[in-house]
Amino acid sequence: MTTIVTGSNRETIERARRVTAAERFDIGTRFGSVFDSAVGSWMRDVEGRRILDVTAASGALLLGNQHPAVVEAVVRSVRDHGVVYASTITPQRIELAERLCERYPAGEKAVFCKSGSEATTAAIQIARAATGRDLILTAGYHGWFEWQRPYRNMGYDPRTRVANFGYNETALARYLDEFGADVAAVIITPEPAWFDVAYHQRLAELCARHGVLFVIDEVITALRWGPRGLNGSGGVRADMITMSKSLGNGHSIAALLGRADVLDYYDAAGIAGTYNRELTPMFAALAVLDEIADGSVHEHCERMGQALKDGMREVLREVGIPAYVTGPNMMFDVVTPSEQLSWDIYAAAYEHGAWFEDSGTQMVTAAFTQSDVDHALEAFEKGARAVAATTDIEPGELSEELRLGFALDAFGGSPHDTPPVLARIEETVELMARRDPSAGTSATAVTG
Amino acid sequence: MTTIVTGSNRETIERARRVTAAERFDIGTRFGSVFDSAVGSWMRDVEGRRILDVTAASGALLLGNQHPAVVEAVVRSVRDHGVVYASTITPQRIELAERLCERYPAGEKAVFCKSGSEATTAAIQIARAATGRDLILTAGYHGWFEWQRPYRNMGYDPRTRVANFGYNETALARYLDEFGADVAAVIITPEPAWFDVAYHQRLAELCARHGVLFVIDEVITALRWGPRGLNGSGGVRADMITMSKSLGNGHSIAALLGRADVLDYYDAAGIAGTYNRELTPMFAALAVLDEIADGSVHEHCERMGQALKDGMREVLREVGIPAYVTGPNMMFDVVTPSEQLSWDIYAAAYEHGAWFEDSGTQMVTAAFTQSDVDHALEAFEKGARAVAATTDIEPGELSEELRLGFALDAFGGSPHDTPPVLARIEETVELMARRDPSAGTSATAVTG
Repeated sequence: MTTIVTGSNRETIERARRVTAAERFDIGTRFGSVFDSAVGSWMRDVEGRRILDVTAASGALLLGNQHPAVVEAVVRSVRDHGVVYASTITPQRIELAERLCERYPAGEKAVFCKSGSEATTAAIQIARAATGRDLILTAGYHGWFEWQRPYRNMGYDPRTRVANFGYNETALARYLDEFGADVAAVIITPEPAWFDVAYHQRLAELCARHGVLFVIDEVITALRWGPRGLNGSGGVRADMITMSKSLGNGHSIAALLGRADVLDYYDAAGIAGTYNRELTPMFAALAVLDEIADGSVHEHCERMGQALKDGMREVLREVGIPAYVTGPNMMFDVVTPSEQLSWDIYAAAYEHGAWFEDSGTQMVTAAFTQSDVDHALEAFEKGARAVAATTDIEPGELSEELRLGFALDAFGGSPHDTPPVLARIEETVELMARRDPSAGTSATAVTG
Repeated sequence: MTTIVTGSNRETIERARRVTAAERFDIGTRFGSVFDSAVGSWMRDVEGRRILDVTAASGALLLGNQHPAVVEAVVRSVRDHGVVYASTITPQRIELAERLCERYPAGEKAVFCKSGSEATTAAIQIARAATGRDLILTAGYHGWFEWQRPYRNMGYDPRTRVANFGYNETALARYLDEFGADVAAVIITPEPAWFDVAYHQRLAELCARHGVLFVIDEVITALRWGPRGLNGSGGVRADMITMSKSLGNGHSIAALLGRADVLDYYDAAGIAGTYNRELTPMFAALAVLDEIADGSVHEHCERMGQALKDGMREVLREVGIPAYVTGPNMMFDVVTPSEQLSWDIYAAAYEHGAWFEDSGTQMVTAAFTQSDVDHALEAFEKGARAVAATTDIEPGELSEELRLGFALDAFGGSPHDTPPVLARIEETVELMARRDPSAGTSATAVTG
């Protein structure tokens, strides 16, 4: 029988460093606790310390850990059904697809995979197969695979045939004017603290005018920008949407929803994946959909999120730290004058028992109570005051320049037509014009 | 509460076709049952019919469905621990990494992701980051993402900078001689029915001689080519190995093991992934490692697999169908004169209650009993006799030409130096020589 030997947080992290942890992703960008269990919004580390999770586990949780209905569904799935069969179709998969298609206007069909990175990759492979076109225009973070990596940088990558328009409408319009007939899809991750519904409506209309597929990457927003995402709650038309986080309440599942005549290119796009049929997260997702059906879960989350957001804004104002605190209640952004300052505040708040997302996007779960919000705000205030006491901070409003700098660093947002941005758009057009449309694969079959 | 309405198999497939199923992947390449539960090796379809799974759910299962130790571990994980936390390091992740590194010689460090497609992608992104080199030389199936797709075809894809050497040693040696200094890694999926340990030893030595990282894609073989895969049981040295199938007994998890000084480029390779920390499949994997620790599970699987393999060979001989039946007992291959003939036999066997893998690779689980083997062989014999009675089959041995044709179709195997293969090697060398090493991304940061 497996026995997990644990030591202090520090010893455990050292043990992880030797055998599995990445220096930055797993250690440098996290605070000093290793957790062994969590109930609701509270995590317990290997030293027995309880810490409130204000990240919703990077957005993966909607109902919090150990939610009874999800636990019951998962237990029932492994005890009564099993995990995977020789066939890929199951009643649960059908039910889940039907219910997601009812929930989101974009959904005529839905297919499943394991991660947001996979779902957005399926979207662009299907778009290319369906249109016979090659170019992809993108903005925002879509995952960690090669085509997704230059998300912070406007420009064109001839290898992946992906042009990043950096949320800049001039760039998108220009690229569509020049190369629209070769564009398989436009894919964008909504950044609701920066770009509103009307912005995305304009993008959807621009794509429709050019006859280009419009894909909204709702991996985070589908259950957090209102209960039905930008596509449903925001009413922005899309040909496909992706979703993943919160869907299985932590159990890994991602979905790609869209037009049936587009998703029917699944085979032509070469998509497969043994675990895409895995039942456990589908049972979890069905339980989540049951729980959120009457809207009360989202109402509660919105209320808790709003209280937290308003409270954090107020703390920063009182302490005298310029800040930009805005966005949907269930995924709002907190921007301060520098990443280092934010890190210092959150690191100090962690010492007082609350784990905030250091990159700034805070997310509650349905497990949050008013007393959790109060605890988070108390820890945040103590952290902010401690940092303010030892740091030289220019008071006043957060400058527009800092606000834009944050957007650029965080997700490549370059919305304004400054001279360097306009120059980059022209460079990109030139580079795209010089692309070799015949530079396809030589890897055709050997016969004989 | 979710209620899953089901109809007949046919009705359920029609319902799936409307909302989620892909015509080929989900319907055309599967037989006519939709399953609702499975225990051990037996699945029960929505009409209540019990069918034996001879595919191990595409290899995902090692112990069979509803194995008590795995069920208990999963239930414990969701009831006592939760699913995901704000941190990515957990005692379970550390324990799993340590035990995998003890199990496989290649493992100094281990990192986790969700699918085989993701694990092999992590391997090549890390290899590129670690070496500063760009070319990848590959053979075999590694998944469904773009760089993995031309796996059946020898040649060079300038977009993904991947050259497929088609298991051809002349090609690999030639490419390494010409371009070795620019090669980040060689990655190969073992096809043990076609290429033995000595073959892979030669490849490993060739890579070592050229100072090129050698990666074995053991997504299927790690727990099926002997208990410790080609790397452990076969003794073939590798710089990295991937593994996934069977590890979580159906729960989705994949691992990348390798040299610490290479895996330390995880951050530089830009790898992330919210669900990579998911606890449920880690608990399942630890339970699997407990179960297989004393070797008896693999001994039993080997015995059942061998009985099935020998029995299927004998059936085909008796019925008079030329065939090639060989490979490791836990993942052996059955080749007949044509894919259509194989499909017809397996489709007929399905009518008699056994679901074989139509592509030919049959896999048992530890849940198989001698009576399951007998049932599978009886169904297979009935299927083979029914097809032989209505099909014109040339008796005798399976020709070497057919054998090679199968390898080419199934995984791009072009091992012999025929004139077309040699010509393709030269074409590929020319194409690789003409590649533009500066054709990188223009997607650099916009400043100002």
